[in-house]
Amino acid sequence: MGVVINCDMGEGFGLYRCGDDAGIMPHIDIGNVACGFHAADPVVMRETVRLAAEHGVAVGAHPSFPDLQGFGRRDMAMGREELAACVLYQIGALKGFLDAAGLPLNHIKPHGALYGAAMRREEVTQAIADAASVYGVPVIGMAGTLHEEVYLARGLTFVAEYYADLDYDPSGALIITREHPARDPVEAARRAVRMLAEGKATTIDGRDFELKAQTICVHSDTPNAAELARVLKEAVRPWLA
Amino acid sequence: MGVVINCDMGEGFGLYRCGDDAGIMPHIDIGNVACGFHAADPVVMRETVRLAAEHGVAVGAHPSFPDLQGFGRRDMAMGREELAACVLYQIGALKGFLDAAGLPLNHIKPHGALYGAAMRREEVTQAIADAASVYGVPVIGMAGTLHEEVYLARGLTFVAEYYADLDYDPSGALIITREHPARDPVEAARRAVRMLAEGKATTIDGRDFELKAQTICVHSDTPNAAELARVLKEAVRPWLA
Amino acid sequence: MGVVINCDMGEGFGLYRCGDDAGIMPHIDIGNVACGFHAADPVVMRETVRLAAEHGVAVGAHPSFPDLQGFGRRDMAMGREELAACVLYQIGALKGFLDAAGLPLNHIKPHGALYGAAMRREEVTQAIADAASVYGVPVIGMAGTLHEEVYLARGLTFVAEYYADLDYDPSGALIITREHPARDPVEAARRAVRMLAEGKATTIDGRDFELKAQTICVHSDTPNAAELARVLKEAVRPWLA
Amino acid sequence: MGVVINCDMGEGFGLYRCGDDAGIMPHIDIGNVACGFHAADPVVMRETVRLAAEHGVAVGAHPSFPDLQGFGRRDMAMGREELAACVLYQIGALKGFLDAAGLPLNHIKPHGALYGAAMRREEVTQAIADAASVYGVPVIGMAGTLHEEVYLARGLTFVAEYYADLDYDPSGALIITREHPARDPVEAARRAVRMLAEGKATTIDGRDFELKAQTICVHSDTPNAAELARVLKEAVRPWLA
Repeated sequence: MGVVINCDMGEGFGLYRCGDDAGIMPHIDIGNVACGFHAADPVVMRETVRLAAEHGVAVGAHPSFPDLQGFGRRDMAMGREELAACVLYQIGALKGFLDAAGLPLNHIKPHGALYGAAMRREEVTQAIADAASVYGVPVIGMAGTLHEEVYLARGLTFVAEYYADLDYDPSGALIITREHPARDPVEAARRAVRMLAEGKATTIDGRDFELKAQTICVHSDTPNAAELARVLKEAVRPWLA
Repeated sequence: MGVVINCDMGEGFGLYRCGDDAGIMPHIDIGNVACGFHAADPVVMRETVRLAAEHGVAVGAHPSFPDLQGFGRRDMAMGREELAACVLYQIGALKGFLDAAGLPLNHIKPHGALYGAAMRREEVTQAIADAASVYGVPVIGMAGTLHEEVYLARGLTFVAEYYADLDYDPSGALIITREHPARDPVEAARRAVRMLAEGKATTIDGRDFELKAQTICVHSDTPNAAELARVLKEAVRPWLA
Repeated sequence: MGVVINCDMGEGFGLYRCGDDAGIMPHIDIGNVACGFHAADPVVMRETVRLAAEHGVAVGAHPSFPDLQGFGRRDMAMGREELAACVLYQIGALKGFLDAAGLPLNHIKPHGALYGAAMRREEVTQAIADAASVYGVPVIGMAGTLHEEVYLARGLTFVAEYYADLDYDPSGALIITREHPARDPVEAARRAVRMLAEGKATTIDGRDFELKAQTICVHSDTPNAAELARVLKEAVRPWLA
Repeated sequence: MGVVINCDMGEGFGLYRCGDDAGIMPHIDIGNVACGFHAADPVVMRETVRLAAEHGVAVGAHPSFPDLQGFGRRDMAMGREELAACVLYQIGALKGFLDAAGLPLNHIKPHGALYGAAMRREEVTQAIADAASVYGVPVIGMAGTLHEEVYLARGLTFVAEYYADLDYDPSGALIITREHPARDPVEAARRAVRMLAEGKATTIDGRDFELKAQTICVHSDTPNAAELARVLKEAVRPWLA
């Protein structure tokens, strides 16, 4: 199976815009669509799903901790039971719009602090697996963390991810930030190609570490996300599915 | 087809309890389950769906205007497009829990001010029909209002409803209140039987008016709802499906 | 007393930006600061108050119906008692940041649908007056509507307003829109000067009507708001306080 | 200075009731009133302040993490700056109702998970101190934790607290629970008297530890809170201010 480019998107809210989803759509394969808990509202979700349908982009759910004001980038102490319900609620809500558009639910990729917490706290990872198991769809995450371990143990398909617009700390862990500065598209694409060709990524302090990924992520709220996605897609074309 | 007893339920939130859902379940046929916009949260919704599944109660969505603080009993000026998205979001969210429990979506019944607005403003009724049409399920409402007219015109099944624990104003219109006082179960049951037998209901000022209904509603937040439902179910047994 | 330029501002939320508040501040006299019910959050409010303090801009509260997703531009059926509490909550919250900055509360100007409803429904206008009376500050509104009538009858100072970036319908009523397109600053300034000099404004269909105002409003979410405010301030300089 | 009985109160929301505030008021000295972030809404806050004013109960703010669905009992990773703004917003909002009732702000006591986090994470304690410093009022907390250390270092008055309706773990740390079961009032009063007379409290496993407190807390959502407060007040009468 080839590599796919995924993008966190549909992250506006009410009158607030966030990211150039229309500009990014032509350059990605799958979209992780916000479900109203860190961003998006019903109108934004419907529009994002319609846009994805028009571009043939497969849609997955991008659930979050309930934290609209913090854009889902603040960790919360939620237990497995309540978190599983919280994630399932969001997936279901998105599925309403998918059902309306005649699209299947393609995958699940947790957002922000929920993504980070699921790398480290097993009750969080299990909660996500509980919700994903209702639909049996793949879950996108970080290789070598609880993501891989728990989702596979639960019989779910795990898809490892590489971030083209975030940094990795000296230990090789992803640095999740509230805001993402613009990235040099050519340099980002060069790194992605290296990861695909050699299975290696680079930490923020310049050290190599091993990283294998089947999907590459771009955030729609990275300022030059559309350009980044375009250049990236060209560069990784030999590896595309 | 016989009559069924429906009940608005699952209307707690967080630590707050509302209504004796467990006590009511044995006496009803279908439950209208809150979807988080006027009451309920993901945990409450999962518990309510599980409880319904245990009692063989069919579950429908009970969507609302987005008004948790007002319990969805305040009208809001929302246009058709945004309201349709808002209702579909709620139905989808509930469907997540139904999917988890292996239950189908049985029907839709709008809540409170949304129910009332849909009797009078066509863009509201059409918005509900837009969302209901995604799943093609029946919609419960008031005969002789836009409910009946619009849902039927849209090719949806319309199920007329009689309220056992609310009053009807001198014009025969339902009086939607924020809080429901206890009702005398025997008197409420007597009125329901009369409606079934003679097609007549009584206004708050004692005048008869014609009303035909296929379902009878009890609210779980009526203080003696469980007792009311029990007595009512006994009384209407000859008409049950 | 001379004319003052007022501006609705502080309307970002979380990571979402809205309007160029920093660019507008030098050109306005008083700011109507969002209180978290249609826009803003505690962080945004603190920053906006700090920015106003730096520029010597007086700060008033800009309370709204509780409708973050609709940006407070959807009418809601709230009674006087609950609405008065809702408005007072918002004023108090803003006053926390004013107290921290050592600034007084300068005035109150309701936002969006609340502003519009207070022109027409007396229980809404009275509710705003109930809250304003706690602090005895002036209220900004539309002359010739319930704003003027009720606030004056309640012994409050009423300040009439002219909108430089909105249109007036054929009856002379303000057209409140969800989004504001850019305005030609020179034309907007010319109209404002005419209103000040002749007491006349123009409807969207080109008819004149009488309008006297002591303050001119610019919205920070009008795309060219900073430029509009700058040109406007130059033009109305002879009338400034 | 004598001991005072404090009570977390005003914790209903919308139509939801929580605790018998009216029954508790006659037996307490100061009330910690919820500010809308873990419980309460503007209407509930106004009613609670009015009730306190009628009973001569002094009112303090009871701010929380923004977590209505979790009743503020889930920890959140918020930084000092955003948390200080969040707490000040809540204090200001409450002060609106105090201003309306002609009451001063008496004190601040953080709620639930915020209270717990402030015992352990200094940025949280400093954030609370930042907000409290705007009004210079005392802060209630746990002796021997960061509460005492930080508030005193910031020049604020620190008031140590003993919980009559919660347990202390084997290390002497308070066990904060989502729901509080009923307590035997006589046993609870006996323990409180012992704490006052001997400066000793007991852990859940029966071990004594030193604890000095100037105020005793009862939660309004403990099922028998009014009876507990009544018996407690009688028992501690010799130590009352």
